[in-house]
Amino acid sequence: MSENDRNPRRSRPERRDDQLEGRNPVREALRAGRGIDKLWVLRPSDDGGQDRDLAFLAGAVRAQGGIVLEVERRALDRLAETRNHQGVIARLRMQDYVSLERLLEIAAERGEDPFLFILDEIQDPWNLGSLLRIADAAGMHGVVIPQRRSASLDGTVARTSAGASSHVAVARVTNLVQAMDSLREAGVWIAGTAVAGAERWDKVRLTGPLAIVIGNEGRGLRPLVRSHCDLLVTIPMLGRINSLNAAVSAGILAYEALRQRGLEPEE
Amino acid sequence: MSENDRNPRRSRPERRDDQLEGRNPVREALRAGRGIDKLWVLRPSDDGGQDRDLAFLAGAVRAQGGIVLEVERRALDRLAETRNHQGVIARLRMQDYVSLERLLEIAAERGEDPFLFILDEIQDPWNLGSLLRIADAAGMHGVVIPQRRSASLDGTVARTSAGASSHVAVARVTNLVQAMDSLREAGVWIAGTAVAGAERWDKVRLTGPLAIVIGNEGRGLRPLVRSHCDLLVTIPMLGRINSLNAAVSAGILAYEALRQRGLEPEE
Repeated sequence: MSENDRNPRRSRPERRDDQLEGRNPVREALRAGRGIDKLWVLRPSDDGGQDRDLAFLAGAVRAQGGIVLEVERRALDRLAETRNHQGVIARLRMQDYVSLERLLEIAAERGEDPFLFILDEIQDPWNLGSLLRIADAAGMHGVVIPQRRSASLDGTVARTSAGASSHVAVARVTNLVQAMDSLREAGVWIAGTAVAGAERWDKVRLTGPLAIVIGNEGRGLRPLVRSHCDLLVTIPMLGRINSLNAAVSAGILAYEALRQRGLEPEE
Repeated sequence: MSENDRNPRRSRPERRDDQLEGRNPVREALRAGRGIDKLWVLRPSDDGGQDRDLAFLAGAVRAQGGIVLEVERRALDRLAETRNHQGVIARLRMQDYVSLERLLEIAAERGEDPFLFILDEIQDPWNLGSLLRIADAAGMHGVVIPQRRSASLDGTVARTSAGASSHVAVARVTNLVQAMDSLREAGVWIAGTAVAGAERWDKVRLTGPLAIVIGNEGRGLRPLVRSHCDLLVTIPMLGRINSLNAAVSAGILAYEALRQRGLEPEE
């Protein structure tokens, strides 16, 4: 079950326009060639055996690049907006993902050094939407997200990104650390964020090929992700509490990089 | 009726712990000396005459500095979480407001130039919470908000500010433009944000006594507010869409000011 569904800011009375519930709607969407981003299906054990219908739908979603999550019945009940989920709920894909290589191609096509975000399990769709807006505004070439435990390009993100999700290339990778290694091999410098003990954001060189890694809202970067960064950057906090919102931190870092690059806005 | 209540991100199933409904709960709160920040009462015409009880409650709330909004019955019904509002709903004040002069005193006590946010009708409590976190993190002395058409220090803001609302001084003023004039007379330089046509954020001097004006989420600064700024600053947007979230823009500007000030973080 996605963590997004526990987001207290999620609006209940409004129906999602990207969610399908029940076997027929999901089957019809697959037949019509609509991309399914995530599929929640009833875990076989709850059902006392394999359900052929559900297994078929799960296979079809996997085959077209979607994620399948096997969950308990009560998780489906919580997620459902109708009473007819019949053991299956699908979230439509609002935008296509691209490959990691494609992000580097986009930079090359523009004749620019790669300038990317890597998002380490950002779970709040509102934050993902804001991060896509920042990537668009700062002229970045794209965003890398992990396949699991991350908000994805669903209808909520499309809405909260104010349209940026249509313009910013997003690569969804199975293993974020491997993706960081691939980017490093391609010459990209990987800057993570640390709460303290690292260099000040404005004292670090943020020019050249760069990926800025933004940590999860609650716990920051995972230790393994942090240890795969080339450098760590601190945004100093002078007050009593010790946290800026993930999107706010990302905006500060992206625009500091832009400042150092001395880019002029398009007129 | 507050604009916040139309916020689609507001969680419905969760009961607010800062909302009182019905005449007795409101009367008891006033007797117990609990601050009431906003009071929605039934407009007299709906009732076929003056309701003495409601008029008394409204007067008591006004006397202790709260805002009273006279609304239609259906606005109360929409706002209510119970079926017993009896024509009156109160939102408790979670933090006290301070005076504009107090913000300047806080700066003087710290031996620093005033460094403030002025928020021109920020309506989303999540944004106000994020802005308070930025003000805390950037070591600012306080935030100025207008009395009307602004999110206020209620329970939602206390929660979304991650505690910052307890540490950041907020002045709530009846007239934002007059407050800007008062600050200017006290030597504070007032920097507004403009989408285009102004100087780049990193080419403008942001040191010395400074108030950064952040516009409403949808329409930016009101023309009158804009015309009362000493300078306008643009955050360049290089992408296809032309908007950063208000809190993200505020973070970029506050940390550019901090960078120019060369402040060292506290260890």
